[in-house]
Formats: sequence, C-alpha cells, structure tokens
Amino acid sequence: MAQKPSIPKGTRDFGPAEVQKRKYILSTIETVFKKYGFMPIETPTMENLSTLEGKYGDEGDKLLFRVLNSGETWEQIRNPKSEIRTQGEFNKVITEKGLRYDLTVPFARYVVMNRNEITFPFKRYQMQPVWRADRPQRGRYREFWQCDADVVGSDSLLNELDLIQIYDEAFRKLGIGNYELRMNNRKVLAGIAEVVKSIDVINSIAVAIDKLDKIGEEGVRKELTEQGFKEEELNRLFEIITITGENEAILNQLQSKLQTSTEGLQGIAELKFILQSLQPINQSTHQPINLKLDFSLARGLSYYTGCIFEVVSTEGSLKSSIGGGGRYDNLTGIFGLTNVSGVGISFGLDRIYDVMDELKLFPQALNATSTKVLVCAFDEHTQLTGINITKQLRDAGIASELYPDLPKSNKEKEKPMLKPMNYADALNIPYTVILKSDGNYVLKNMTEKTETVLSLNDIIHHLSTKH
Amino acid sequence: MAQKPSIPKGTRDFGPAEVQKRKYILSTIETVFKKYGFMPIETPTMENLSTLEGKYGDEGDKLLFRVLNSGETWEQIRNPKSEIRTQGEFNKVITEKGLRYDLTVPFARYVVMNRNEITFPFKRYQMQPVWRADRPQRGRYREFWQCDADVVGSDSLLNELDLIQIYDEAFRKLGIGNYELRMNNRKVLAGIAEVVKSIDVINSIAVAIDKLDKIGEEGVRKELTEQGFKEEELNRLFEIITITGENEAILNQLQSKLQTSTEGLQGIAELKFILQSLQPINQSTHQPINLKLDFSLARGLSYYTGCIFEVVSTEGSLKSSIGGGGRYDNLTGIFGLTNVSGVGISFGLDRIYDVMDELKLFPQALNATSTKVLVCAFDEHTQLTGINITKQLRDAGIASELYPDLPKSNKEKEKPMLKPMNYADALNIPYTVILKSDGNYVLKNMTEKTETVLSLNDIIHHLSTKH
Repeated sequence: MAQKPSIPKGTRDFGPAEVQKRKYILSTIETVFKKYGFMPIETPTMENLSTLEGKYGDEGDKLLFRVLNSGETWEQIRNPKSEIRTQGEFNKVITEKGLRYDLTVPFARYVVMNRNEITFPFKRYQMQPVWRADRPQRGRYREFWQCDADVVGSDSLLNELDLIQIYDEAFRKLGIGNYELRMNNRKVLAGIAEVVKSIDVINSIAVAIDKLDKIGEEGVRKELTEQGFKEEELNRLFEIITITGENEAILNQLQSKLQTSTEGLQGIAELKFILQSLQPINQSTHQPINLKLDFSLARGLSYYTGCIFEVVSTEGSLKSSIGGGGRYDNLTGIFGLTNVSGVGISFGLDRIYDVMDELKLFPQALNATSTKVLVCAFDEHTQLTGINITKQLRDAGIASELYPDLPKSNKEKEKPMLKPMNYADALNIPYTVILKSDGNYVLKNMTEKTETVLSLNDIIHHLSTKH
Repeated sequence: MAQKPSIPKGTRDFGPAEVQKRKYILSTIETVFKKYGFMPIETPTMENLSTLEGKYGDEGDKLLFRVLNSGETWEQIRNPKSEIRTQGEFNKVITEKGLRYDLTVPFARYVVMNRNEITFPFKRYQMQPVWRADRPQRGRYREFWQCDADVVGSDSLLNELDLIQIYDEAFRKLGIGNYELRMNNRKVLAGIAEVVKSIDVINSIAVAIDKLDKIGEEGVRKELTEQGFKEEELNRLFEIITITGENEAILNQLQSKLQTSTEGLQGIAELKFILQSLQPINQSTHQPINLKLDFSLARGLSYYTGCIFEVVSTEGSLKSSIGGGGRYDNLTGIFGLTNVSGVGISFGLDRIYDVMDELKLFPQALNATSTKVLVCAFDEHTQLTGINITKQLRDAGIASELYPDLPKSNKEKEKPMLKPMNYADALNIPYTVILKSDGNYVLKNMTEKTETVLSLNDIIHHLSTKH
C-alpha cells in the first residue's frame, strides 16, 4: 500500500529555516516597495489560456503549464466524428486554463479589467510564484517567485528614477552591496539598428545580443550573418555596443554615432535625464548607486519600448541576473486599453536566495523557530503546573512551548529531561524552564549552559528584557 | 486584436485594499502560530497525482485540478494502436501532476520525505492556497487559502489544548469574539456506532450526521434507513447526538450511555482530560474559551481518529465553518511511515475574510497605500527639488511619493495641483507637500484641509512623530 513519495521535478519543498530566509527577503523587498508608495495586488494562479497564449513568444507558449478541463473530455476525443487532428486542436478541447507564467501579463489584464476603479498613475507591487515548464537546472526552477513593482499610467522618467532607487535600497538592505545595475534604452537599440542596417532589424539585434554573455561575439555574429547581416554592418554594431567607460563619456560617444537617428537621440536624451536626476541623489549619500550604461543590454522580450534594466550580482560563483525590467508603452493594448505607458522591475526571489545563501548574507538571528523558552515537566503533576506557566509566559508575549510528552519507558524516566533538552538544542530554543519536584522553577540558558532558580515573575521579566 | 479579458470562474483578483486585509488576517494568525512554537513550511503548488489521488475520496479525486504533461500527447492518443479506452486511462497518459487540494496530505508527504532531518514532535504551520474544481458559490471558491497548524510525533493531548488556545487567541485578535468552538471525538462516534448498531458503521454515521446542518434529522434518518438502519437504531442515535447542556453534564450523560463501549469510554476520557486541563486556563482570564461539546460533530474525512474540532462564526449572516481539524493516528502511513500520531487545525482565510468584512471587523487604519506624504511639483524646476525632498523623507523612514507627472495641457497648467490632490484623496494619503514657486514648502493635512509653511526639517519631524 505504501507509496514512496516524491515531488514533481523542478519544484521544491521549503523547510522552516528556508521559509524564514525566503520571508526575510520578501519582507525586505516589500518594505522598500511600500516606502516608495507601491500597493499590493494578487492575481489567480490560473489564468485563461486566452490571456496567456501569444504573449511570451512561441517558446513561452510551449513552456506554459496547462490545466485539464474538468469532465469527461475523453468521450469527446474518441468520438469517431471528432475533428481533432493536431496537438493544437486537442489542447483547445481539453484545456482552457494555464498557470501564471509571469506577473506582468496578469497585471496588464488586471489593469484593463479594473480600469474604472484604478487611480492612475497606478503603482502596484506583486509577489507571487510563477510556473514554467523549463528544463530544471542550477538556479532554474519550474516554480519560482517574482517580486514585481510597476507604475502604469505615467510616462514620466521619474518613475524609472524611483525604480532604480528601489533596486539599490532593497539590495543594500539585503546585504548584496556588490551588484551592478545595467541600464540601456530600447530607443537606443532602435537607433543602433538604424545606423547599422535599418530600424526594422531592432528585434533581430535585440534577440541576438541578448545572448552575448552565453554565446560570445562570435556566436552573435554567426547568428546575425545567417539572418543576412553583412560583415561591415556587424563591425559597426560591435563598435557601438562594446563602447566602455564612464557613463557620461560613453553616452557622448554614442551620441556622435547616432546623430542620424531621431529615435536613437530620443533614447540618449532619456538616459541623460535619468543620469542627471540621479546626481543629487548620489551626492547626498556615501554609497552612490552603481548604475552602469551598457549598450549591449537588450532583454529578449519585445514589449519594452524605453529604458531597460538588468541587475547582476558581481560576487560569488553565481553571477546571474537577479532582477530586470523596463518601460513598455503599450502592454495593456493587447487587452484593449491603449495609450497607457508603464514601467516595471522584477526581483527574482530564488536567485537572490541562492546568492545570499552562498555569500552567507542572512542574519544570524534568523532562527527556524520563534520559540524563546521551552517549559519542561517530568510527570502529570508538574505538567499541570507547566500548562499554567506556559499560558502566563504567552500572555506576557513570550513565544513559549510546553514539551508535550512525558517519559514513558523506565529508561526515559531515569533521565526525564533528556528528550526535552535534545528538542530545545535541535531547534535552537535559547531558554528552558525546568519544573523541579521541590516546586522550584529553574531557568536554563541553553547557550551558556547556566541554570538559575527563579520565580515565574523573574523568569518573565528576564525573558521579556532579553532581546 | 484586442481580447476582452476575464479570469477563470471561481478565482479572484485581489486589489490593494483586499490584499492588505487578507495580509492582516494571515499575519495575525501567523503571529499566534509562532507564539505557540509552530514553524513554517511551504510545499509546491503541483504535487504528483500519485500523492493526491485516493486521499480525498472519489468526490475529491473528481475535484482535483490536473496539469497536462508537456510534450506531444496527441500523437500518442490518436495512434490507432492506442489502448486508451476510458477517461482514467486517458488521464494517466496526459496528466501526472495536480494542484494542491489541501495542506494536510502534502504535509504528510513532506514529513515522510524529510523524516531523518525533522526533530519530533514537529510543530509546523503552513499558509498557502489550495484548489478544488467545486461548483463556485457564495463563500466557496476554486482557489482559496488554508492556514494549518499541525503537531506530528506526539500523542499528548496537550497538543489539542494548545490548538484550542490558538483558535481562541487568533479569533479574538481578529475581533471575532462571537464564535463557537465545537469538539467531539472519533472514538466517541465509534462508541455511539457500537451501541447503536455496530462499530463498523462509524463511517456511515459520520458521513450522514456531518450533513445534519444541511439536510436535517429527517434527511439523515432517510439516508441511514436506506443503508439498512432500523428505526430503533436511529432513535438511539438521535437520543445520543442531540444531548444538550453544560459540557460536564452532557459528558456524564454520554458516559452512562456508552458504558459497554471500551473505545467510547476512551474517547470520553480524552474529552474529560481536555476540559479539565482547560479549567485553570479559563480561570485565569476574563474571557473563558467557548469550547462546546457536540456529539453530532463528525467531520467527513475519515482519517481522523481522536478529537475533532469545528469553529463556527455565530454572528452575521454567514454562520459558516471558519475552521476545523482533529487528530489522526496514521496519516503518514499511506506514505510508508507508520505509528506517527498527529493533530492539526485549519483556518479558512476566505471565510474569515467574508465574516470580518460583513461585521466590519477590519481596523480602520488598514489603508490600501502605505504612503504618508505625496510631494507635489508644478514644473521641471520644482520637480528637481521634489526628487531631493522625497529622497530625504524616505531616508527618514517616511513612506513618500513624488507625483511623477507635470501638467501638460494649458488647462492643466492653470490648476497644476488638481491631479496630484485628486490622487492623494483617492488613495487616502494623509499629507501632501506642495512646492511653491517662492521656494516655500507647504505641508497640507489632507483630512483637516489645513496648510502650513514649514522647513523640510520641520516637515520630517512633524511626519515622524505623527503615528
């Protein structure tokens, strides 16, 4: 009868210590979101496939987890008259819902459905899991959490400025001081496309240079050559996207190269405005924000139209992206609400966790249990006293437990405190109260291994004043 | 191109005000869980169907949301040699995963998979959504949240005592003072079955009287008559389960009726122990815990073996169950780990929300936004000042926003503060800082409609000391 249990590949259980650490990250980010005026929303785990399909490219559609319709679909399918001939037609009959693939598309749907109740600009944050049927590997899971902040209904670049500050404040609060916030602009990429070949090739260029980290310059050249790019065009492309130096200097270089592109110059103006607005902020602090222009930053998804961002942790073995985002001018358009500009960023909880875990950035005090004291009785009589003591400790706001089991075997009765003490040690509970047969209460400091006979009032006082 | 967006039936979006209220409930319950020494775990949204199926009865299996396997299943199915002839065989080929149906079965699976790392007794809490393809109706959703606390690896009734106190403390903290905590014991039900007919009919009786609220005594009699119960047996049944009165008195009455049932008397002893242990707790408080014996309480699920609980809100139009639980002696047995007794309770977030919403129990101060002050500029110049002021307000820990948009049309320029003020009013932001052309800062109290010219330091001081 007994099954050997397992969980689906790419998914994970989180034990108490992991949940505490994950919640620490989530609440740190949430605190920053709130400080900047963002408000929470939550959307359903399942969305209609009509909402999800076609929003993430062909690759994305394949990675959607689809939910089977309820009812007897088999009847429909085995019917000889059934006209189902392809996987696509098959899917239409048996599935209408899928699991949330990201938080951006559900957010766009939410905005459109609730446009009459929403006050714009609408600054929302959302922290929920998403699902992708990707091949699981290190740092890539099939269920993972995103933490998004978006502003819709305002085209002001001050929103970008806020999001940059949110990134910086959140990562610093988490202890991830060594990160790089890369910024580019889709209009700059359009300008580059224009001077390299023509403005229509922006998506080819964006998709290809997005893989620069993975496949290198040779790989990108190969991919674009196959798409008909000439060598001189590729030379022009790499001359531009490999410009390095101080932000202001490289922006000036870029400007001289994009003189002929109206859109490119517009992108440069946007980047300039942000850098300039950031100056007074950076001057008022010891730790200026490490914002770095990177003209090779593309971000695959094609809905971005303005500034784009990516955050990379630069310490430890995991130099992976821990966040990204950008401005989109028409995300809600697919759901029928046009001319609503928005900009958003995302934090990848699971990647951030992996980085913090490797770099040991979690606070020492994060304990799996919140219990401050374990009350230990050795027989029915002291257990009754224990019920009362535990109640009074809890009434005083002290997280407490009464060890529930009494010694059963004779061997256990010889050392009645063995199991409770092992329990307290295993869970890192800092104090125990041992109820003695003479009616005394002994407070034991589990770290220092010291014992003191105290009254209940003194115990409460002692535990209330310790951190 | 534009689609009219919608969400799957039985699911809901939650806007900022709703999320704040839901989080308020969750964090209140979580605080209590922690105070009693429970530790958090989280399990994946998807479980293998082998974990889920057969655990919730035939009805439950039908209500599982199944996730389609990735890949080209259609090819397999249209193959003429395919031996798929029934919905069941069809499901096996196309789906291996399902959405979490409750938190108890995943918890049992977790305990078995992690038994070597877990310190027992293991006190865990878990607050996550679950999914059931039930017919949606008032108070019943297809995606809803459960908040569970369980202790496994201890058969001590002190755990039941803790869970009773958790219920009481959490509901009081939420303001739901008018609730009834009903308790019964499966062994008492076994004893009743024994004296009514025979101990084997306990499940028939449990399933039937579980519906007493819905179908009434007549309905229960009809259902059991159809199962072969005689009238005199049903008379004996109702004589027992309708006993009313003070806890101690009705327990004594029950004892006299179940004299011949060893198991029944064991159940009575357990109930007595809990009532007695509760006495000192109730004597030390102004608000004794409203624990009420109810021998007609059955709870459908058959894995319970000891005490069972149900909490019902007794005020307002929604007299529905807002929590329930009980002891199970062998839940992990289905996954190969036997002899591990456990007891747990569950809070139904969505039902609790509906009750609190109807009774207006949410704190007034729960605002959709956390923003305390909106900084308002009217041109590029004051906006630059605004960036700096907002930064300093945030550095002082004051949740702040700079209104991002400047007046665009001439009409807007005539009344540059109209849109920012409307925004602040709509979001209930309590203060605004208006940057004047003469360089002054005006702090406006949005509730009292008063304006004061202040220095930035005075503004920070003023806002830091106000609640």
